[in-house]
Amino acid sequence: MDTNTTAEVAAATASNISQAGIIIIFILCALTIIGAFVYAAWLAKWVRAQKNENKEIERIAGLIRSGADAFMRKEYLILAVFAGVVAVLIFLFLPGPVWKQANINSNLTMALCYIAGTVFSAIAGKIGIYVASLANARTAEAATHGIAPAFRIGFRGGSVMGLLVVGACLLGVMAVMLLVGDASALLGFSFGASSLALFAKAGGGIFTKTADVSADLAGKVEMGIPEDDPRNPAVIADNVGDNVGDVAGMGADLFDSNVASMAAAIVMGAALDGGTGANVMMVFCYAALGLLASLVGIATAKVSDNGTPTGALNSSTYVTTGVFLVLTALATLIFPCFQWRIWGASAVGLMVGVIIGLATNYFTDDNKPIVPKVAHASKTGPAFTILSGVSYGFLSVVPAMVGIAFSALIAYKLCEPLGDGYAMYGISMAAVGMLSIVGTIISSDAFGPIVDNARGLAEMGGLGEETIRNADALDSAGNTVKAVTKGFAIGAAGLTVISLLGAFMSEVNMALTEMGRLGELLTGFNLIDPTVFFGVLVGGSIPAVFSAMLILGVDKNAQRMIAEIHRQWNEIKGLREGVEGVEPDYNKCIDIATEGALKELIPAGAVAILATIVVGMVGGVNAVGGYLLGNIVTGLLLALFMSNAGGLWDNAKKYIEAGNEGGKGSDAHKAAVIGDTVGDPFKDTAGPSINTQITVVSLVASLMATIFLNFSIF
Amino acid sequence: MDTNTTAEVAAATASNISQAGIIIIFILCALTIIGAFVYAAWLAKWVRAQKNENKEIERIAGLIRSGADAFMRKEYLILAVFAGVVAVLIFLFLPGPVWKQANINSNLTMALCYIAGTVFSAIAGKIGIYVASLANARTAEAATHGIAPAFRIGFRGGSVMGLLVVGACLLGVMAVMLLVGDASALLGFSFGASSLALFAKAGGGIFTKTADVSADLAGKVEMGIPEDDPRNPAVIADNVGDNVGDVAGMGADLFDSNVASMAAAIVMGAALDGGTGANVMMVFCYAALGLLASLVGIATAKVSDNGTPTGALNSSTYVTTGVFLVLTALATLIFPCFQWRIWGASAVGLMVGVIIGLATNYFTDDNKPIVPKVAHASKTGPAFTILSGVSYGFLSVVPAMVGIAFSALIAYKLCEPLGDGYAMYGISMAAVGMLSIVGTIISSDAFGPIVDNARGLAEMGGLGEETIRNADALDSAGNTVKAVTKGFAIGAAGLTVISLLGAFMSEVNMALTEMGRLGELLTGFNLIDPTVFFGVLVGGSIPAVFSAMLILGVDKNAQRMIAEIHRQWNEIKGLREGVEGVEPDYNKCIDIATEGALKELIPAGAVAILATIVVGMVGGVNAVGGYLLGNIVTGLLLALFMSNAGGLWDNAKKYIEAGNEGGKGSDAHKAAVIGDTVGDPFKDTAGPSINTQITVVSLVASLMATIFLNFSIF
Repeated sequence: MDTNTTAEVAAATASNISQAGIIIIFILCALTIIGAFVYAAWLAKWVRAQKNENKEIERIAGLIRSGADAFMRKEYLILAVFAGVVAVLIFLFLPGPVWKQANINSNLTMALCYIAGTVFSAIAGKIGIYVASLANARTAEAATHGIAPAFRIGFRGGSVMGLLVVGACLLGVMAVMLLVGDASALLGFSFGASSLALFAKAGGGIFTKTADVSADLAGKVEMGIPEDDPRNPAVIADNVGDNVGDVAGMGADLFDSNVASMAAAIVMGAALDGGTGANVMMVFCYAALGLLASLVGIATAKVSDNGTPTGALNSSTYVTTGVFLVLTALATLIFPCFQWRIWGASAVGLMVGVIIGLATNYFTDDNKPIVPKVAHASKTGPAFTILSGVSYGFLSVVPAMVGIAFSALIAYKLCEPLGDGYAMYGISMAAVGMLSIVGTIISSDAFGPIVDNARGLAEMGGLGEETIRNADALDSAGNTVKAVTKGFAIGAAGLTVISLLGAFMSEVNMALTEMGRLGELLTGFNLIDPTVFFGVLVGGSIPAVFSAMLILGVDKNAQRMIAEIHRQWNEIKGLREGVEGVEPDYNKCIDIATEGALKELIPAGAVAILATIVVGMVGGVNAVGGYLLGNIVTGLLLALFMSNAGGLWDNAKKYIEAGNEGGKGSDAHKAAVIGDTVGDPFKDTAGPSINTQITVVSLVASLMATIFLNFSIF
Repeated sequence: MDTNTTAEVAAATASNISQAGIIIIFILCALTIIGAFVYAAWLAKWVRAQKNENKEIERIAGLIRSGADAFMRKEYLILAVFAGVVAVLIFLFLPGPVWKQANINSNLTMALCYIAGTVFSAIAGKIGIYVASLANARTAEAATHGIAPAFRIGFRGGSVMGLLVVGACLLGVMAVMLLVGDASALLGFSFGASSLALFAKAGGGIFTKTADVSADLAGKVEMGIPEDDPRNPAVIADNVGDNVGDVAGMGADLFDSNVASMAAAIVMGAALDGGTGANVMMVFCYAALGLLASLVGIATAKVSDNGTPTGALNSSTYVTTGVFLVLTALATLIFPCFQWRIWGASAVGLMVGVIIGLATNYFTDDNKPIVPKVAHASKTGPAFTILSGVSYGFLSVVPAMVGIAFSALIAYKLCEPLGDGYAMYGISMAAVGMLSIVGTIISSDAFGPIVDNARGLAEMGGLGEETIRNADALDSAGNTVKAVTKGFAIGAAGLTVISLLGAFMSEVNMALTEMGRLGELLTGFNLIDPTVFFGVLVGGSIPAVFSAMLILGVDKNAQRMIAEIHRQWNEIKGLREGVEGVEPDYNKCIDIATEGALKELIPAGAVAILATIVVGMVGGVNAVGGYLLGNIVTGLLLALFMSNAGGLWDNAKKYIEAGNEGGKGSDAHKAAVIGDTVGDPFKDTAGPSINTQITVVSLVASLMATIFLNFSIF
C-alpha cells in the first residue's frame, strides 16, 4: 500500500491501463457473467427437481404461477407500447433533435440502448419470477423435513433472480460499452432499465395492494369468507401480487440502481481518462468482483444446526461483503493504475449500506424496542398506532440520510487529492461499492415472498402443525430481511442519484463544449441562484405528488376490482355457494388489477417527467440541477419514512398476533390492523417506487441536457 | 412610472434618500405605531364594555382566563431562565468570542437585543390573549342578538392581538435601528422573537394537545362523562389550550416571521446603501404602510345584511391587500429613490401569499371537493380516512411550494437589473410584501378560538338554540379562516427563510471581510460541493426528527396528566360524585401540561440547534448553507403537509357530523374521529412549529457565522 500512496498523485494524472489489463478485466467480467448464469441455471434445475407431490398444493401453486404469467404478459405488452413510443421520442430528440444531427447514428444508438435496457431487465425478471413461483410449493413440502432443507429451496429459488439480475446488468453494460463505446449511450440503457423498474415497482405495487385490499374488503368484510377462500375471484391476484411486487419489482428496482450506478461511474470515469481508461475499467472490475462475491455468499448460505434463517441470510450478506472487500483490495494491489483511495470510497459506500440495513432493522424488527412501543401504543386506540408509527418512521430516516451524507462527503474528500473530477467519481464508486453485494441482497429479498407463499400453501395443503411452524420461522425471517433490503435499496438509490447529479453536469458540459459555448461551462449549481432555488422547491414537491397519486391509484383501482368481484358473484351460478367444480374467473381480476395499475401509474410517472421538462424549459440547466437535488432530498425522506413506517406497522401487528398486548382479536390488535392497512400502500406501493421516480427523473434530465441548454425562458 | 423607469438604473447605483425623506418615514412609522396601539386600546376597552351578565358563563370564562394566566406565567418563567442562559451565551460568543473583541459593546448589544426581542413579543402576546379571553363570553352573549353583533365582538377581540403584534414588531425593529444603528443587531432581536415563538408555538402546541387528549381519554373514555364536564380536572386546561395555541402561539409565530423578514431585508438593504439608505427606509415605509392598511382592513370588517362571517373576514383581507398596494405605489411615486421593480417584487410576494391561502382553502374547506372525498373514504374504514388524508395532504403542498418558488424567481429577476445585491434584496422585499397584511391575518386567526370558546360557553350557559346556531356559523368561519392563515404563515416563513439564507451569506462575507480573508468570499453555495451536499441531507432530516419528537412529546405528556387526573379523583373526596362545591385543582393540570410541554419541547429545539452547530463544525459555512436549504425544503413540505392534512381531517369529521355520509355515530364518523385525532398534533403541534424551527436554525447559523469560519473540520 505504501508504494501506491507515494505514487498515487503521479498515477492519477495519467491513469492508463495496459491493453493486457483491459483484456484481463473484460475476461473476468465475461467469466463471472457466465458463472452466474450457469449457476443460476443449475439452481433453477435443482429447484425444479425437488419433491412436489401434494396435488392440492400443486393446483394452487399452478394458479399463482399462471396468474403471475398473466400479469407479466399484460405488463410487458403495455410496456412494449410505452417503450416503443419513448424509443421513437428518443430517436427524434436525443441526444439532440435528429434533424439537426450530422448523422442519425447517435440518435439511433440511444433509442436501441434504451430498448435493450428494458429487454435485459424484463428477461431477468421473467425467468426469476418463474423460478420463484416453482420454489414456493417445493419449499412448503420440504418444510415437513425441517427448517434447513426448506430454507435451502427458498433461498436457492430467490438466488436465481439475484444472479440473473446482476449478471444481466453487467452483461448489458459491457455490451453497450464494447459495441457502442460511448459512455453517454449507457444513460440510454439505464433509462430503459428505469422505465421497466417504474412499471415493475410502482405498477406492481399498485397491483399487489389493489388485489390485497379488494380481496379483503369484498371477501372477508362483505361475504365473511376466510382470507384465502377459492370462491373469491381476487384471491389468486392477491397471492400473485406478493410475487410480482417483491420478486419482480425489487429485482427491477435494483437492476435499475445497479445499472445507473455503473453508468454514472463510467460516464465520470470516461471523462477522466477516456472510454477504456483505468477508471472505467475499475468500474467493470469492481462490478465483476461484486458478482463473484455474491456467488460465494449465495453458495455458502445455509442454516447451521443451531442457527436461525435470519442468521443464515445475514451471514450470507457478511460473507459477500468480506469477499468483495478482499477481492477488490487484491485487484488494487495487482493493477498499479487502480487507486487505494478509490477502493476506500467504495468500501465506505458498502459499509454505509450495511449500516443503513442495520438501522432499518432496529426500527422494524420485533426483537428491537420500537415495534413493541408501537404495539403498546395501539392499546390506546388506532390514532395512537398511526401517530407513534409516523413519529418513529420520521426518526428512522435519520441514520440513512446522515449515513448517505457522510459516505458522500468521505468518498469525495478521499478522492479529491487524486485530481480534478476524481472527487465526484469517488462518490459514484461509493455507490458502486454499496451495490456490489446486490446479488445477495436480491436473493434474500426474493426469499421473502417465496416462503410467504410456502407458508400459505402449507396451511392450505394441510401439511400439519410442525410444518407450518417451520414455514412460519422462515416467513418471519423473510419479513425482517425484506425491511432491511428495502432500506438498502433506497440507500443505494440515494447514493446513485448523487452520482447522476454529477453525470448530469458532465452531460451539460459536454454539450456546451460541442456547441463551443465554453464560457458557460458549469462548475456546479449555486443555491443562491434563484433558478436553482426555484428548481429545488419544485423538485422537492414532486415525490409527495407522486406518492399521493400512487396511493390514490390503489384506492380507485380497488373500487374497479370490487365491482368485478360483485359481477362474478352475481353472474357465475353456484360460485357464491361453493358448488363443486365452479371456479371464478381469476384471470379477469388479474387483468383488471394489471390494467388499472398501469393506468394509474402512467399519470404519476408523467407528472414527474413533465415537471422535469417544464422546470428545464423555465429555468434551464441550473433549475434542473436544483430540481434534481430537491427531488433527491424529499424523495429520500419520504421513501425511507413510508417504507420503514409500513414495515413497523406490519411487524407491530404480527407482534400483537404473537400474543402480546392482548393478542389476536383484542382492541390493540384491531388498532394494529388499521395501522397495517395504512402501511401497506406506504411500504409496498409508494415508498419503494420513489427511488425509481428519482432515477427516471435524473436520467430524463441528463438525456435532455442539450435541449434545456437551447430552449429556456430564464 | 415612465420617468422612474428611465431613471432607475442611475438611481440604483446611488440610491440616496434625503434627510427629510428619512425623517418623514420614521414619523410615518411612529404615527402608525401610535395609531395601532391607540386603536387596540380603544377596541379592548370597547370589548370590555360589552354586556356580560350570564353568571355561569362568566364563571367558566373566568376559569379559562385564570388558566391562561397560569400557563403564561409558567411559560414566561421558564422562558426567562432559558432566555437568560441564551443571553449569557450570546454575550460570551456572539458575534465573536468576547475575550477576542476589541470592546465588549457589540456582544452586549447583541445580548440586549435578544432579550428585547423576547420581551416585545411576550408583552404583545400577554395583552392579546387577555383581551381574547374577555371577548369569548361577550361574543356568546351577543350571539343572542344575531351573527353581526357577535362577529363584531369576536373580531375586535382578535384585532387587539393583531394590532399589538404588528405595532410591537415595527416599534422594536425601529428602536434597534435608531438606538444601535447596526443591521446585524436586528438578527439578535429576531432571534429573541424566534425563541419566544418556539416556546409559544411548539410549547403551546404540545400543551393544547396534551390537555385535549388527556381530557378525552380520562373523561369521555374512562369515566364516560361529557366533554366539558367540570368534574374533569383537565377540562379547563383543554379550553385554555385553544387560546394559548392559536391566539398566543400564532401571534408569536407571525411576530417572529415579520421581524425576521424585516431583519433580512434591512441587512441586505444596508449592504446596498448603508444604515439609513433608500433601501433600508423602503422596508420601514412598506412595513408602516402595511400596518396602516391592516388598520383600515380591521376597521372596515363587518358582516353585511346578506353576508356571511367568512365573507367578512375575506373582504377584510382583500381591503388590506388593496390598500397596501395603492399606498406603496403612492410612496414609490412620491419618493424618487424608491424603485418600481422593488414595488413589483413585494406585490408578487403579497399575491402569492393570497394564492397560498386560497389553495389551502381548497384542500380544507368543506364547500370544496376534497373534504367530502375524505369523508366518503371514511365509509370504508379508518385506514382509508388516513390514506386519503395523507394523499390529499401531500398534493396540497404543491401550490404553496411552487408559488414560493415562482415568487422568489420573479422577485429576483425583477430586481436583478437594478444592480449587484438587488436580486436577493428583491426576494426579501417579496417576503416583506407577503407579511404586510399580517395584522389582518392575525386578527382573523385570533377570531377563531374566541368564537370557538363562545360556542362552548353559549351551550354551557343555556343561551338557546338560536344563539348556538349563530355561534356555530361564526365557529365554522373561524375554522375555515384558521386553515388559511396557517397556510399563509407557513408560506410567509418560507419566503422569509430564503432571505435569511441570503442574510447568512451576507454575514459570512462581512466576517470574512473583517478578518481580511477576501479570497474566500462566498458567491453562493455549490450543490456539487460535497460539504454543501452533506449539509443538505442532514438539514433535510431535521424537520422530520423535530416533528417526531413533538408528537411523541404530546404522548408522553398526556400520560403524566392522566396520572394526575386519576390522583385527583382518588384523593379529592366528592369529586367523582359531583358533590356541590367540590372542585378539582384545575391549575395543577395546567401546571403539568405547561411544565411537561416545555420539558418535551426543549430536547426537540436543542436537537435542531445542536445539529446546526455540528454541521457547521464539520463542514464549515458551506455545509451550513446546504443545511439551511435542506431544512427549508423538507421543512416546508412537512409543515404544509401536516397542517393541511390535519385541517382536512378536522373538517371531514365536521362534515360528517353535519349529517353527511351517515352522520354522527355512524361508522364513517368513528373513522373520521380517528383521522381527526391523528390530525390534531399534526396541525396544532408539529406542523406549524416547523416554521419556527427553520427560523431559529437560520438565525443561529447567521449569528454563529464567524465561529464556523474559524473552527471546522473540512
